[in-house]
Amino acid sequence: MKVTALKTSHIIKNNENLFEVICETLDYNKIELTERSVIVIAETLVGTSENRIIDIESVKNISEKAEELALKYQIDPKFAQLVLEESDEIVGGIPGMLFTEKNGILIANGGIDESNSGIEGKVSLWPRNPFGSARDLVQKIKQKFGLTDFGIIISDSRVQPIRKGVVGVAIGIDGFHPIIDCRGRKDLFGHEMKWTTRAIADQLSDTAHVVMGECDEQTPCVLIENCPVEFTNDPIPQDSMLMPKKDDLFYRIWKK
Amino acid sequence: MKVTALKTSHIIKNNENLFEVICETLDYNKIELTERSVIVIAETLVGTSENRIIDIESVKNISEKAEELALKYQIDPKFAQLVLEESDEIVGGIPGMLFTEKNGILIANGGIDESNSGIEGKVSLWPRNPFGSARDLVQKIKQKFGLTDFGIIISDSRVQPIRKGVVGVAIGIDGFHPIIDCRGRKDLFGHEMKWTTRAIADQLSDTAHVVMGECDEQTPCVLIENCPVEFTNDPIPQDSMLMPKKDDLFYRIWKK
Repeated sequence: MKVTALKTSHIIKNNENLFEVICETLDYNKIELTERSVIVIAETLVGTSENRIIDIESVKNISEKAEELALKYQIDPKFAQLVLEESDEIVGGIPGMLFTEKNGILIANGGIDESNSGIEGKVSLWPRNPFGSARDLVQKIKQKFGLTDFGIIISDSRVQPIRKGVVGVAIGIDGFHPIIDCRGRKDLFGHEMKWTTRAIADQLSDTAHVVMGECDEQTPCVLIENCPVEFTNDPIPQDSMLMPKKDDLFYRIWKK
Repeated sequence: MKVTALKTSHIIKNNENLFEVICETLDYNKIELTERSVIVIAETLVGTSENRIIDIESVKNISEKAEELALKYQIDPKFAQLVLEESDEIVGGIPGMLFTEKNGILIANGGIDESNSGIEGKVSLWPRNPFGSARDLVQKIKQKFGLTDFGIIISDSRVQPIRKGVVGVAIGIDGFHPIIDCRGRKDLFGHEMKWTTRAIADQLSDTAHVVMGECDEQTPCVLIENCPVEFTNDPIPQDSMLMPKKDDLFYRIWKK
């Protein structure tokens, strides 16, 4: 498996066409796409192409709830309002940050990023439909390059329990199965595996983050070649990577 | 960055010398180690080399606490006793599994594995000193191959909150800094990053798990070449990847 960070030819601006950006970036990096590749794309790039960079000053109509959160967690009420609008649920917070659930994923500030979003006062919102954007890209790229097996991951970074540092999380994917179910398969000694499923899409997000960076690298796309996943043309259900809360270990143990 | 799963020439048995196993595996896969490589090793292999495969029937002196956990979570009292001995804390459980903290890491069953541990009734325990084993290997491998920049990760897999499937976690490392601190660095637009630190050792564990598999692949070592980490000769503190609970987002929000 080969992992290559792809630098864009320029800093991508609001409303640039994502498919064209990807094609131009492949060209700029002299990449010829081959079968069994996956491209991991930073969610900020996808959001930017959807004009999801907005000026925090443009947020009006601050709700009572937003004022309350802003006071409690020492954040700008406008930012709190945006997080409320972008999130499905506010799970909690610490000073300076709200912790939220969005599309079934636990993520800081409803996925709103203050970095890599442009000049001061701008923030970037999550892509509107990460699975849809991934599917659209997979279909266009397969057609343009004549590929059968190809996948896209739209990726964000997030914290993990009682460990330092962010890891990657796949917020939208297409072209391959995001979970590998080992249950019923045999181990080295022929025993049947009882528990294990593998979060291969999250593992590949993490793989990409190793070379992608988080600062000023200008490499929002990562090409993973010779990728050991099970490719498919079928659409991937949006809940395919989510553990129902009633079955979730952390949720059952910690969140009473 | 290139990622290669290394098959062992045979199934590794109790008490085989780990350094010799790694050298033989490199040879068997015709690998010439180069500067800036990291080898990720499955914890089961390290445990096996330390004779940490044990027969569950050999567990005696079942404590009252173990009997209680066994009843509550429908597990074998002998297994519960082992988990108690191996863990620093029992965090909770679900039917069939205990959730524990060990060396500051949240992990199922105190890191005890029922798969890839040998014939029926055998389980594998975590390596005794993952940081020490990693350091020992790094020093021996650097010397044998005349390398300056080389790293080792000893890796396990674990679940993540409200997501399906396991991801990789680094339980011991040496040869490079496991966390990249981006705070104070600039983003694309020159803004200073306020929050982000990157769990690069965990990200590399995950990278390895993509090609390593969890079943009968017999590839407990993964070579990552041209690895973008900051190499060092200094020993890595055992708590360098741990977020103090008082500062941890999940802990502060969920665990009251």
